[in-house]
Amino acid sequence: MAHPGPHPALTAAADAARAAYTDARARHDRATLAETVEQGADGTPTMRIDRLVEDAVLRALEPHRVNVLSEESGWVDRGSEISLVIDPLDGSANGAAGVPLTAFAGTVAVAGEFTESYTSWLDTGRGWWAHREAPTAYRTSGRRELAGAALSMLRPHTAKPGPAAAWWAAASRAARVRVLSTTCLEAALVAEGATDAFADACSDTHRLVDLAAATVLVGRAGGVVLDVRGRPVEFTTDLTRRWSGVVAATEELGRELVGVLHEAAASAHR
Amino acid sequence: MAHPGPHPALTAAADAARAAYTDARARHDRATLAETVEQGADGTPTMRIDRLVEDAVLRALEPHRVNVLSEESGWVDRGSEISLVIDPLDGSANGAAGVPLTAFAGTVAVAGEFTESYTSWLDTGRGWWAHREAPTAYRTSGRRELAGAALSMLRPHTAKPGPAAAWWAAASRAARVRVLSTTCLEAALVAEGATDAFADACSDTHRLVDLAAATVLVGRAGGVVLDVRGRPVEFTTDLTRRWSGVVAATEELGRELVGVLHEAAASAHR
Repeated sequence: MAHPGPHPALTAAADAARAAYTDARARHDRATLAETVEQGADGTPTMRIDRLVEDAVLRALEPHRVNVLSEESGWVDRGSEISLVIDPLDGSANGAAGVPLTAFAGTVAVAGEFTESYTSWLDTGRGWWAHREAPTAYRTSGRRELAGAALSMLRPHTAKPGPAAAWWAAASRAARVRVLSTTCLEAALVAEGATDAFADACSDTHRLVDLAAATVLVGRAGGVVLDVRGRPVEFTTDLTRRWSGVVAATEELGRELVGVLHEAAASAHR
Repeated sequence: MAHPGPHPALTAAADAARAAYTDARARHDRATLAETVEQGADGTPTMRIDRLVEDAVLRALEPHRVNVLSEESGWVDRGSEISLVIDPLDGSANGAAGVPLTAFAGTVAVAGEFTESYTSWLDTGRGWWAHREAPTAYRTSGRRELAGAALSMLRPHTAKPGPAAAWWAAASRAARVRVLSTTCLEAALVAEGATDAFADACSDTHRLVDLAAATVLVGRAGGVVLDVRGRPVEFTTDLTRRWSGVVAATEELGRELVGVLHEAAASAHR
């Protein structure tokens, strides 16, 4: 059976996110967009720009009657078999400041299994869709070793000895390091083969909304999504759970990165 | 006198760079684009994608009869009073791999003084023009202190003790660190106020083609371009000269960054 294309709730959410982001950037200055307006359901502060984009996404999803797990509002149960895991605005700090690297990422879970994902680069409109049963043109680089690899990471947590040591160890082994401050876009670049891997260096910053789309998109493209401490990246409605995600072009590269990060962090604590 | 707008040689060069970049990405795979085809006039290897874009830029500039200083070909003297300092493709590694963060940057020097610059984000077509005698809408963030600042840097040179220590010291003091691997685009973001500063942490990687546009664009927007070792960033036809550039929203922030980087690198060598 030919696959019919993205779930309409996914594209509706992505379109709403892009329109709301563009509108927020046009109407408000940086300080207003960056202001903390509340504590999000994930336990981190919600910026005004997060709130504006998420509100628009939730409104757009109402007619679709699906369950929604979203960064700021948490779990909305509508009794559907289908759940959408949504990061309305990945790279909020970029978006508030005007660094044009922000993404929407949405993932469909059917009966608790991730089936498809859509990532949209909000600053340009470029998008990446993948379905676990549909063919895909995306192919990771296929790189198997950290030596020679292009690696993206979250910014270094310089004040925490374990994560700091892990960051530096990985940076020292890779050929090239980037920090774009948007996990979902960096994962899409791994799926395309533009970069070899992305990692949270043991800081346990990642929530499910940051990693869900990558499990489908990068998985279909031949890569993997792992966690430095071995926790499975799977559907859950518990937004307090955290991961140190490793997104890699191949299983071998992913496992090597996990090993390098884990060992460096452990050494720093001995 | 109202200013007439960008010098036609600048826009011709930028348009040619964008068309050639787009064409190169469409025609060739990553390995072909990244292949070293020669040693550039600046002493670093020239990738095929650099050669393709620079050739197109030089052809587009021929009818304009200006002198050209360019990354790969070096100094072309046509006996004009006007010289163009050109980085045809800043972020070559991004461009070859498919990370959509590459820039063209061109700067006009009249009788050895920089007068105007144009930076073009080749992946999207966004552009930043500035002339030292024309009004500008660009305004840096105005931030004066590294504490709380958003800082972009070149990737860390982990194997060199001085630059490695400098990188980590600056990263530890800033609130946020990014590594986009394209100096010219990161300088444009400083001019817009989207980020507070950009630095080469004492690795002496910068050539004049990387920094010339920032002297006009960021200067007009209220910021500064300094060098960690105090070398003036000025017109020269000597492509072997190097700088560790610091592009900052204010003179105060620039001087603090220079101090932090310089001191950390010096301490690593004591």
